[in-house]
Amino acid sequence: MYNFQHDYAEGAHPDILKKLVETNLVQQVGYGEDEYSLQAKTLIRQKVKNDKAAIYFVSGGTQANLMVISALLKTHEGVISAETGHISSNETGAIEAVGHKVMTIQTADGKLAPEHIQKVQKVYSKRPHVLKPKMVYISNSTEIGTIYSKAELTALSAYCRANGLILFLDGARLGSALTAKENDLTLPEISALTDVFYIGGTKNGALLGEAIVFNDPELAPEFDYVVKQKGAMLAKGRLLGIQFLELFKGELFLELAQHANDMATMLAEGMSKKGVDFYMKHESNQLFPILSNERLNRLRNNFLFHDWVEIDEQHTAIRLVTSWATLEEEVVAFLEEL
Amino acid sequence: MYNFQHDYAEGAHPDILKKLVETNLVQQVGYGEDEYSLQAKTLIRQKVKNDKAAIYFVSGGTQANLMVISALLKTHEGVISAETGHISSNETGAIEAVGHKVMTIQTADGKLAPEHIQKVQKVYSKRPHVLKPKMVYISNSTEIGTIYSKAELTALSAYCRANGLILFLDGARLGSALTAKENDLTLPEISALTDVFYIGGTKNGALLGEAIVFNDPELAPEFDYVVKQKGAMLAKGRLLGIQFLELFKGELFLELAQHANDMATMLAEGMSKKGVDFYMKHESNQLFPILSNERLNRLRNNFLFHDWVEIDEQHTAIRLVTSWATLEEEVVAFLEEL
Amino acid sequence: MYNFQHDYAEGAHPDILKKLVETNLVQQVGYGEDEYSLQAKTLIRQKVKNDKAAIYFVSGGTQANLMVISALLKTHEGVISAETGHISSNETGAIEAVGHKVMTIQTADGKLAPEHIQKVQKVYSKRPHVLKPKMVYISNSTEIGTIYSKAELTALSAYCRANGLILFLDGARLGSALTAKENDLTLPEISALTDVFYIGGTKNGALLGEAIVFNDPELAPEFDYVVKQKGAMLAKGRLLGIQFLELFKGELFLELAQHANDMATMLAEGMSKKGVDFYMKHESNQLFPILSNERLNRLRNNFLFHDWVEIDEQHTAIRLVTSWATLEEEVVAFLEEL
Amino acid sequence: MYNFQHDYAEGAHPDILKKLVETNLVQQVGYGEDEYSLQAKTLIRQKVKNDKAAIYFVSGGTQANLMVISALLKTHEGVISAETGHISSNETGAIEAVGHKVMTIQTADGKLAPEHIQKVQKVYSKRPHVLKPKMVYISNSTEIGTIYSKAELTALSAYCRANGLILFLDGARLGSALTAKENDLTLPEISALTDVFYIGGTKNGALLGEAIVFNDPELAPEFDYVVKQKGAMLAKGRLLGIQFLELFKGELFLELAQHANDMATMLAEGMSKKGVDFYMKHESNQLFPILSNERLNRLRNNFLFHDWVEIDEQHTAIRLVTSWATLEEEVVAFLEEL
Repeated sequence: MYNFQHDYAEGAHPDILKKLVETNLVQQVGYGEDEYSLQAKTLIRQKVKNDKAAIYFVSGGTQANLMVISALLKTHEGVISAETGHISSNETGAIEAVGHKVMTIQTADGKLAPEHIQKVQKVYSKRPHVLKPKMVYISNSTEIGTIYSKAELTALSAYCRANGLILFLDGARLGSALTAKENDLTLPEISALTDVFYIGGTKNGALLGEAIVFNDPELAPEFDYVVKQKGAMLAKGRLLGIQFLELFKGELFLELAQHANDMATMLAEGMSKKGVDFYMKHESNQLFPILSNERLNRLRNNFLFHDWVEIDEQHTAIRLVTSWATLEEEVVAFLEEL
Repeated sequence: MYNFQHDYAEGAHPDILKKLVETNLVQQVGYGEDEYSLQAKTLIRQKVKNDKAAIYFVSGGTQANLMVISALLKTHEGVISAETGHISSNETGAIEAVGHKVMTIQTADGKLAPEHIQKVQKVYSKRPHVLKPKMVYISNSTEIGTIYSKAELTALSAYCRANGLILFLDGARLGSALTAKENDLTLPEISALTDVFYIGGTKNGALLGEAIVFNDPELAPEFDYVVKQKGAMLAKGRLLGIQFLELFKGELFLELAQHANDMATMLAEGMSKKGVDFYMKHESNQLFPILSNERLNRLRNNFLFHDWVEIDEQHTAIRLVTSWATLEEEVVAFLEEL
Repeated sequence: MYNFQHDYAEGAHPDILKKLVETNLVQQVGYGEDEYSLQAKTLIRQKVKNDKAAIYFVSGGTQANLMVISALLKTHEGVISAETGHISSNETGAIEAVGHKVMTIQTADGKLAPEHIQKVQKVYSKRPHVLKPKMVYISNSTEIGTIYSKAELTALSAYCRANGLILFLDGARLGSALTAKENDLTLPEISALTDVFYIGGTKNGALLGEAIVFNDPELAPEFDYVVKQKGAMLAKGRLLGIQFLELFKGELFLELAQHANDMATMLAEGMSKKGVDFYMKHESNQLFPILSNERLNRLRNNFLFHDWVEIDEQHTAIRLVTSWATLEEEVVAFLEEL
Repeated sequence: MYNFQHDYAEGAHPDILKKLVETNLVQQVGYGEDEYSLQAKTLIRQKVKNDKAAIYFVSGGTQANLMVISALLKTHEGVISAETGHISSNETGAIEAVGHKVMTIQTADGKLAPEHIQKVQKVYSKRPHVLKPKMVYISNSTEIGTIYSKAELTALSAYCRANGLILFLDGARLGSALTAKENDLTLPEISALTDVFYIGGTKNGALLGEAIVFNDPELAPEFDYVVKQKGAMLAKGRLLGIQFLELFKGELFLELAQHANDMATMLAEGMSKKGVDFYMKHESNQLFPILSNERLNRLRNNFLFHDWVEIDEQHTAIRLVTSWATLEEEVVAFLEEL
């Protein structure tokens, strides 16, 4: 059985494990003040070209989302998200549990544009009987595999700045977005166009870890308290620091994402050649082919994947996810089996 | 500089890293359903002699505390803790942030007895103008290094059961308690006498990880939702599973704790011989010697430790913590330097 | 200017004020234990034909909603509501602020049926990555003036009971529902078919006040704590008790609602005769006529009402609300002006 | 039986009821935008001599406290209070339920001075493992009847401003404080020395109502959202507006409080003459005489009061509270009975 269900089926890139082993007995202070974390933060500041960025390493995306949102919103403020946004659809009410409503809007492709924001603002205009929309949450790549172009992110950023809205980008799969064929955004641009974002390690070769980047440190100058309060501050912060040190000391972060995308492209092109249609345009490391249930049942003998949505009685769109560790031979095998 | 500040200055026991490396590319499903986590849970059920216990692995103690408490308490219920209890003194209001008051009481040794609970219940008796005390939170070993005897835990457990109170034991340093010289409790007894407790990995040789054990699975039959909601469910749950698999497949968990205690005893006996007094009786891997500030300033050149409390103008009680990785030669060096 | 904006433009029915004046200097104990509150609770138990019902008086609907929901749901549970439901559309995130997601679904008429619940349950089925739907929130009459028939409420109640869902009915305008022309439900039936509901005083002749009724007192045996915690327990509970004592000692509650409905019917029939169409079928004391903007602008000179929704460039649906105090002459004047 | 248990045993001052009756059928818009509320706010701005103050009327003290605190504190901030402070001892965890810890300190007289604040700041200095103290909560008069002098409040205010702490004064019994014999503070001074405070109506002749005053409207420019979210915005806001209109259009507020204090003084002096000792110095409308249990048992036949604290096996300190409505003849009767 080969697993195309998600991009966290394997452990970590071997360089990360090697560094963990090498540094294992070097004593370090706790709670993220270790030298590996400090070095990794310096590297990321260089990569985003912002030497004043405030960076925090935490263990997962839900954690990152609930902390950023609870640190930045007041009790009467809400966060706008696409209906497909992770905070709306996949986090067990984590945002509501810290007191804030997720104001959702349907989109064609999982991406938000200024017109979506305007619609939500209109729905939430009867002050004080409704919450105040104060933050815009987006994901890049999105939960359905699409990516933002530079023009799209620039327009959204300008709208948010003109309207006093905080722009927060969930980058759990940012590597895959940045190395997508049609991508025209760079990491420094992502940083310049958003107020806060994070760089996902867990889905791109780390054992765990997301690096939250506040582009302006004054946005959340006391975020360290929040990290501790929400149970996200690891005693052995070195574990997180080492993940990002290895991913960012060279180009490993982008190389791993590139591999995932290459494998996805290979899968997509192979399927297209066989006449397969897609539920959502392929852009990054998530694919949503539409297949007959009969064909799917055969594939299930050797492959794991998620059923995404029923198209009709005979057809289902599935989700295939590739990763830094996806084996080319398994891609070939999948296409052959098809 | 040698670090006696805490028991998480190093990485993990080499067996854990070895297993991480060996299993690294074996594909697993996510979110704690991997085979290592399942095996580790089976092992722990055997060690606690309770084959129906429900077990969850999470990354740290604050996280464990806030999840257990928010899962088990209603909005109008509070949790009783010693003033020195971690949830009161060291977790940045994590429990209040999930909506519950920590009802504290001063104790001589960081331990709660039925008479403490009764006092708190009296303070909180003016229903409905005060919260209802519903849970008792204890730590073993405590935040000041003391341990519960079987008689003490039995009495507390009986009181809680007779009074409808949930007994929750924070075992961040449970290994050290169980291997302490004066300990007469076993892991199955801990399990039988409490409603829920956790076994700390982070401070006993794991990279990270606490194993929450609900002795009666009906106490929180839907705790998986809570783990996800609070951002504590790792995509690569294997990372946590492997920590506990290695700690519990043999006797590693107890052996590591025994080493920490042995080093602490060596330190304590060495200091006693030199006439040093202690702020708190030495029982586990935390020591609180009282030293002159002059002596301390000399020690600071080569050793890291926490200043705990000012005794008088010339003397301070410090905290020394030993761990699974503490080097005997550094203990000797510390005593010589003294 | 005459106000058709809402059903709380005037003070209270004169009988209530009279009783307030008469009893003003009689000393009473505080916090809802006064004799008027106790008598009023006895009366309501008789009216709902449930002598074990537990009743709490609070000052408003948002307060009632947030208390019932925070008392009955666990941290990982959510509440299902129509999109038009007051907790979703009009309470400034009150429910999210106490930690729970409102799971909304679009409906044609503001009412929920078993098939709506099933759809929401399907959306929230990926345990543990989504919340568990645990409560169904409905309003009768709804926020758009429709009412539940006995058959509808019976079906919904049966579905909830079969599926372990708590059924909570917001009765801020329950009087208007019970006295609607097409209503076939009685107060005892409302009580028997729901788990918890409330009887609105504020919008039916009281100065303030909603009477929360737990049909089974074991559902929330410690709700008094919650009332105090959320700031809803008035020191002078007599103020609330007297409202309900006067409304329920005879048939005042129903009479006042009947008047509101009669005025609404008069308005509706008058408009229908003039060929006016309605956005939503008229059933209770809220009307949603569609009028040309030109006509509306003329009406605005003498009448206050809410613009509800833009139908097209020339037409708008407005909301007219009648109350226990609506003057027949003003209804006539409105129809003439039209 | 005569009730000395609290200052809310009766209804409202007759002027308030009269105004309610007179204005009853005048239509008003809802949610606090009625003309009575607007007039009352103007009056209060004049009385506090601050024409830019932002004022909100809410129904009770717990509500006022939880709203001010949840509006002004960030998730990682806490509020300092005396142990006897209402938010700590009497509000069923209302503050914790909105996510914030109450950081308490023991005091001799229920009042906070800069040295208390410093001590708490020292306890909460281990950033980020503890919350950040950000607000100071005081009551005037306090929960044990004491009052702040101008010198005391000035010192505390200066300390808070120098240390970035918000000073919040709970004035549930502010009338009694301002009319106390030893008081040297005025309402404009209270306003100038605090950041936010409230003027209690409920315990000084209103049916219900506290007027929250933000001295600088920029401190909480969107507080209206919070009032709605927490269920504190009455549909018929006129009910609250009229209370304060009547209390403040002349000197009624102070006259009522003066009566309560006069009755307390008469009680205190009468008891002193009989050699009775007091648990706490008498300053306002709460008295804490120490009486033998035998004597108390006799008094219980005709009077209601609270047992405050057991002094020894034979003696108890009780609490007697006088109000705007206390009858002089009952004071005489109590003293005679004694």
